[in-house]
Amino acid sequence: MSLGSCRSSKSRFWRKPSLRYEIVKSIEWLGNRLRFIDQTKLPLEEVCIETDQYTLLADAIRSLGIRGAPLIGVAAAYGVALAGLRTDESNLQSFRNEIEYAIGELASTRPTAVNLSWALERMRKNLNASLSIEAARVVLVREAIVIHEEDEEMCRRIGECGSQLIPDRATILTHCNAGALATGGEGTALNIITTAHRMGKSINVYVSETRPLLQGARLTTWELMKAGVDVTLIIDSAAASLMQQKKIDCVVVGADRIARNGDAANKVGTYMHAVTAHYHGIPFYVAAPSSSIDPPLEDGNNIPIEERNASEITEGFGKRIAPEGTNVYAPAFDSTPARLITAIVTEKGIHRPPFHFQ
Amino acid sequence: MSLGSCRSSKSRFWRKPSLRYEIVKSIEWLGNRLRFIDQTKLPLEEVCIETDQYTLLADAIRSLGIRGAPLIGVAAAYGVALAGLRTDESNLQSFRNEIEYAIGELASTRPTAVNLSWALERMRKNLNASLSIEAARVVLVREAIVIHEEDEEMCRRIGECGSQLIPDRATILTHCNAGALATGGEGTALNIITTAHRMGKSINVYVSETRPLLQGARLTTWELMKAGVDVTLIIDSAAASLMQQKKIDCVVVGADRIARNGDAANKVGTYMHAVTAHYHGIPFYVAAPSSSIDPPLEDGNNIPIEERNASEITEGFGKRIAPEGTNVYAPAFDSTPARLITAIVTEKGIHRPPFHFQ
Repeated sequence: MSLGSCRSSKSRFWRKPSLRYEIVKSIEWLGNRLRFIDQTKLPLEEVCIETDQYTLLADAIRSLGIRGAPLIGVAAAYGVALAGLRTDESNLQSFRNEIEYAIGELASTRPTAVNLSWALERMRKNLNASLSIEAARVVLVREAIVIHEEDEEMCRRIGECGSQLIPDRATILTHCNAGALATGGEGTALNIITTAHRMGKSINVYVSETRPLLQGARLTTWELMKAGVDVTLIIDSAAASLMQQKKIDCVVVGADRIARNGDAANKVGTYMHAVTAHYHGIPFYVAAPSSSIDPPLEDGNNIPIEERNASEITEGFGKRIAPEGTNVYAPAFDSTPARLITAIVTEKGIHRPPFHFQ
Repeated sequence: MSLGSCRSSKSRFWRKPSLRYEIVKSIEWLGNRLRFIDQTKLPLEEVCIETDQYTLLADAIRSLGIRGAPLIGVAAAYGVALAGLRTDESNLQSFRNEIEYAIGELASTRPTAVNLSWALERMRKNLNASLSIEAARVVLVREAIVIHEEDEEMCRRIGECGSQLIPDRATILTHCNAGALATGGEGTALNIITTAHRMGKSINVYVSETRPLLQGARLTTWELMKAGVDVTLIIDSAAASLMQQKKIDCVVVGADRIARNGDAANKVGTYMHAVTAHYHGIPFYVAAPSSSIDPPLEDGNNIPIEERNASEITEGFGKRIAPEGTNVYAPAFDSTPARLITAIVTEKGIHRPPFHFQ
């Protein structure tokens, strides 16, 4: 593992001077190890970590150093590849057992996003199809790279499709971070916004800060400022008031898991935005890769909602904000019913209700 | 001015051992000076400030060391009394000019709560009716004490009336702080909750933390824990999700200004709670003294909404949470239309819609 500033590293943040924007690379495969941005440090420090150990990757996913449903899937796939490279077992069955153990460890890091288990299942299939350790090592690395490349392509298509939903002059509300930092590519919901901006549409964005861990304030403002998009930060609870003032034209958010009927789990607060948008007649768009869709799940009631540690709310910034011993309810996600969603954008196109995902 | 811990001071936090609760005294007149709790320090430190200077009081109101619409009115009245005691003018007209200047300073501290100008207007009338400096000094002190006593009585009545709205077993959502810390007495919205608790009703309270300045997390949890009420802290944006889960029986909040038609301005986020409560069919109650009602104001559209400094959002936890140069929209209040309000509780009773305040 090594730590260093990304600021001077051209391979991390490349600039297209003519368009005056930077695209962030949240993760990068370096042949035998992985480099990723430690998102817990943003926006104050741009720190990259390089590692060849999947356990460090699992820790980073757990602590939200790596976060965002698609990126978690990509990172976990690379984690399995790293486990393959590092394991010194010489017996194929023992090798498989070691990798299975790593898959279990990575699968246990976060419970809500389905991309994680989806990516790990792909890695498992490749593992089981390999007839030698050497072949398995090669195949696991290749499959992780393919998952990453597919993710980049998925982001591109979501941006392209979804940007059609955005009017020529639009003020958009987004929540949390569904940008380059949440994916292996240029983002889902946020890529819709930046693509519309690059198409020359006049875009203003309100970002809700996204308590408790402030991914909106820390990550989305940072990405949008790099992308040259006009962005204004608000507290989560001010969004409804902006809608009341007719200042929001549409809401665009990501999703961590989508049920067959279109119910979508996303960062806590998304449901609040959906209800208030509905009340004000404002379109509410969800963008996610089709790998976030979980067709066996009939509806959103059964999506497991991760509860985070109370201290993320009461001591999230190194300063205690509630009395000692305060009870806290700290869900990380909530579930928005399909009836509040105007459209779901995946890499396959724009889906309108009623949703019936296969 | 002197600073000291309140913890050991029996006159500040008196305990009724049989009932096992403490009532907080946010402000106290000491004959020739005022003692108040510095609310910016809570809940980590219980610091009281004693002062005989109205300018320090004005600063405390501006910095939210003293906050809550009713308490601001009481504090400003005492501020005028202090100005009267301190001014060494010997000419009545010069004395009046000095006090008018102090009234202007105090009036400019916060723009939204109407109680402030209401209390200052009462003080001005007493000033103008006084025929000598000595008489004015006495009258100003007396009037401030009367305003304080009326506020205590107002709180008691609001608690008594409003507690009738609370079912025997209830889970209540409240936002910001409308408790003893917001008034000269035992609170408005929060006093409804604590009164219902003392009546023996089984009460659970969810408190939304109330970004950016976290009055819910810092002050309301602190007050409710002292009052022996079962309280759980949530982030503001998790409230809608609790409503979706049918875990909230009613919402009770305060108000800083109420228009003739019942539209109510209160801490930003209140409107969000009102819309989401409406969507889920949950009663939404507003509690405030009738001094918060501003009948000349036809509706909520014309209530001035204070904008606070961006740094309260971006650096509120003592650590920067957004990139340098981020645009911020930081309203302190929002306006909830009367159609979303189930009832308004004042010291005069329970008002049901349609509201026509005189």
